[in-house]
Amino acid sequence: MVDYSQHFSEDVPSFFRSPVREIFKRVDLSRIYSFAGGYPSADTFPLSQMGALAGKVASKYGSKALQYGGTQGVPELRQVLSDRYGVPLGNIQITTSSQQGIDVCTRILADPGDVILTVCPTYLGALQSFRSYRAEVRAFPLSDSFAADIERAAREVRAEGKKVAFIYLIPDFQNPSGETISLPMRREIVETARKEDLLVVEDSPYRELRYEGEDVPSLYSLAPERVLHLGSFSKIFAPGLRLGWIFGPETLLDAIYVCKQSLDLCPPVFDQYLAAEFMGSGALDANLVHTRSLYRAKRDLMLSLLERLMPEGVSWTRPEGGLFLFLTLPEGFDSVAFYETALSAGVAYVAGSFFGAGANTMRLNFSFMSEDRIREGLALLSDLIRKAL
Amino acid sequence: MVDYSQHFSEDVPSFFRSPVREIFKRVDLSRIYSFAGGYPSADTFPLSQMGALAGKVASKYGSKALQYGGTQGVPELRQVLSDRYGVPLGNIQITTSSQQGIDVCTRILADPGDVILTVCPTYLGALQSFRSYRAEVRAFPLSDSFAADIERAAREVRAEGKKVAFIYLIPDFQNPSGETISLPMRREIVETARKEDLLVVEDSPYRELRYEGEDVPSLYSLAPERVLHLGSFSKIFAPGLRLGWIFGPETLLDAIYVCKQSLDLCPPVFDQYLAAEFMGSGALDANLVHTRSLYRAKRDLMLSLLERLMPEGVSWTRPEGGLFLFLTLPEGFDSVAFYETALSAGVAYVAGSFFGAGANTMRLNFSFMSEDRIREGLALLSDLIRKAL
Repeated sequence: MVDYSQHFSEDVPSFFRSPVREIFKRVDLSRIYSFAGGYPSADTFPLSQMGALAGKVASKYGSKALQYGGTQGVPELRQVLSDRYGVPLGNIQITTSSQQGIDVCTRILADPGDVILTVCPTYLGALQSFRSYRAEVRAFPLSDSFAADIERAAREVRAEGKKVAFIYLIPDFQNPSGETISLPMRREIVETARKEDLLVVEDSPYRELRYEGEDVPSLYSLAPERVLHLGSFSKIFAPGLRLGWIFGPETLLDAIYVCKQSLDLCPPVFDQYLAAEFMGSGALDANLVHTRSLYRAKRDLMLSLLERLMPEGVSWTRPEGGLFLFLTLPEGFDSVAFYETALSAGVAYVAGSFFGAGANTMRLNFSFMSEDRIREGLALLSDLIRKAL
Repeated sequence: MVDYSQHFSEDVPSFFRSPVREIFKRVDLSRIYSFAGGYPSADTFPLSQMGALAGKVASKYGSKALQYGGTQGVPELRQVLSDRYGVPLGNIQITTSSQQGIDVCTRILADPGDVILTVCPTYLGALQSFRSYRAEVRAFPLSDSFAADIERAAREVRAEGKKVAFIYLIPDFQNPSGETISLPMRREIVETARKEDLLVVEDSPYRELRYEGEDVPSLYSLAPERVLHLGSFSKIFAPGLRLGWIFGPETLLDAIYVCKQSLDLCPPVFDQYLAAEFMGSGALDANLVHTRSLYRAKRDLMLSLLERLMPEGVSWTRPEGGLFLFLTLPEGFDSVAFYETALSAGVAYVAGSFFGAGANTMRLNFSFMSEDRIREGLALLSDLIRKAL
């Protein structure tokens, strides 16, 4: 018998499993009502176009579409992103998923014991990455004093002789709360970052999924010298491609570039050409119109159903975009314990405590299921909650 | 101005750029004779099949081919690998390239200051990954005393109060030398690993590319409890897909699985279905027959040209498979300095010193170029070497 534990590196005990991914190992998604996960609707996938798209990539780009590619990403995809978002080529790095973006930013900026400042609650996959490098997370609610909280925390961290690795934020339709950071607060955050010499990782996978109101300028646009901005094709094309991007200062991107050589040499090349072709031809924008309208209707349905079905004492966020809303149940409700009841009855969600929120909260996804299944699933969940209260 | 350097983690100064990838940033591969890189021949890519293959994946697997997938890899691809290689499903993890396999093995096993024992010379991308985690590399020539050298080194490392992270080997058609480790030596290495309680990372991207002789049992087959075996689709399908796999003990794969959740959530899903379909349908094996015959002819051509063209005092390895052979020039020849001369004249190689070998060595790839270009390129290189001696 080999005792593997004594061979493990010191990072390994800090790895923790995603409870969301563990749910998906246990259940067949097609057989339960799933408000868990951050899955896009399959109705938004250009499935019927994939054969023709792949054929076009093969004929247009030839063998370079199947060969090794440059570590920064293929020039054609970087150009399409540059044209779309107005960012110079030198400030664009393609990543093998925006999760890799989070991971590689953490890798180049955080040592064990360093502190990452963020919102509470926040994205689980980011917390997994931060903890895996043994960084410490200090999280603050998205209140009017958020920038002041960050500033005070940064000073405390320094007073303790520690280093702030970066501020991590999802300013648009935050996962899990669905909230958006206002422009005045974005300005305050940027000012704090400048005053305290802090870098910001702006995680922005949902930015293109706005269903009402006006776009708020990204943190990157407000402070391109301090912000690493992470984008993703997962919510606007397909997560099965595992493609994202980073916009950022060249010096930081250069460290990420060299790191990425040893991580995986280059992002998936064939997928990059599929994305370049899909985005560059206008097909992505046409698909986005459809996606936004589909998700807007689902969000509206969720909000009206919650209003009608949920018992007194339950409240929820009203997201202007994205994939999630966040439920707060009466004090004392334990959404982790309740989860087994819900799952046995055939409905899944993610407990808010996994994101660092209170035990009386839960995240509900509204993108994945059809409207009919949202109706049935939310009726079931509301009944179960009513009985449990 | 932001001083980014003070924000970097302690790993960053240990990152180093791949000189091979730097070459490819500087030159247009189609305009020079390139014996550099480890690029497969574009003639081995099933380019004309990609449209139909993608269409088949879309119609056969539906939306799950574009959705998020499980972190271990999609069941269909793991099943095809299990059938082909006789490894149980529980011992198979799909990776986003076998470079990621190297990286994640290093991540879960090596702390800064730990020692990795390997062959000299060895794969540059592995050295990049090892150094990026601040591990120390101790490398020994592949002589008859290699296993004894490893054993002595392991004891020395412990006597110094340090830990051996693992032994790293490419037993089949080693990059860069082209050499294969004999069965008796494999048995010795495995015995040493057992005696000294060491783990082994067996990097095996070329194993299916044998042009003569018999397969030698893998280290994994000799000691499945101690070996992490890394495979790759890059040399048998297409590197543009970025897909590989790890066979290994369940406890180690479980740590890799949890780590991979925060690295990139899951391997590219659409690519995995393309690979499952290509391998499962028999198309990969048909393509491999063609690939082996193409590369065998190129290797034979290289060997006969070297014999005819190279000046006295130059010797080279005679690989039974893989993509590379390794040239040793007379003592005093500086292949790094000579590189600029060669590149100006239009021919590229990789200096052996980048792999840890002597300054008088160089790696020559024979898979990438056509036979005509191999002829012209090697005539040019031989002339240049003759003049330089």
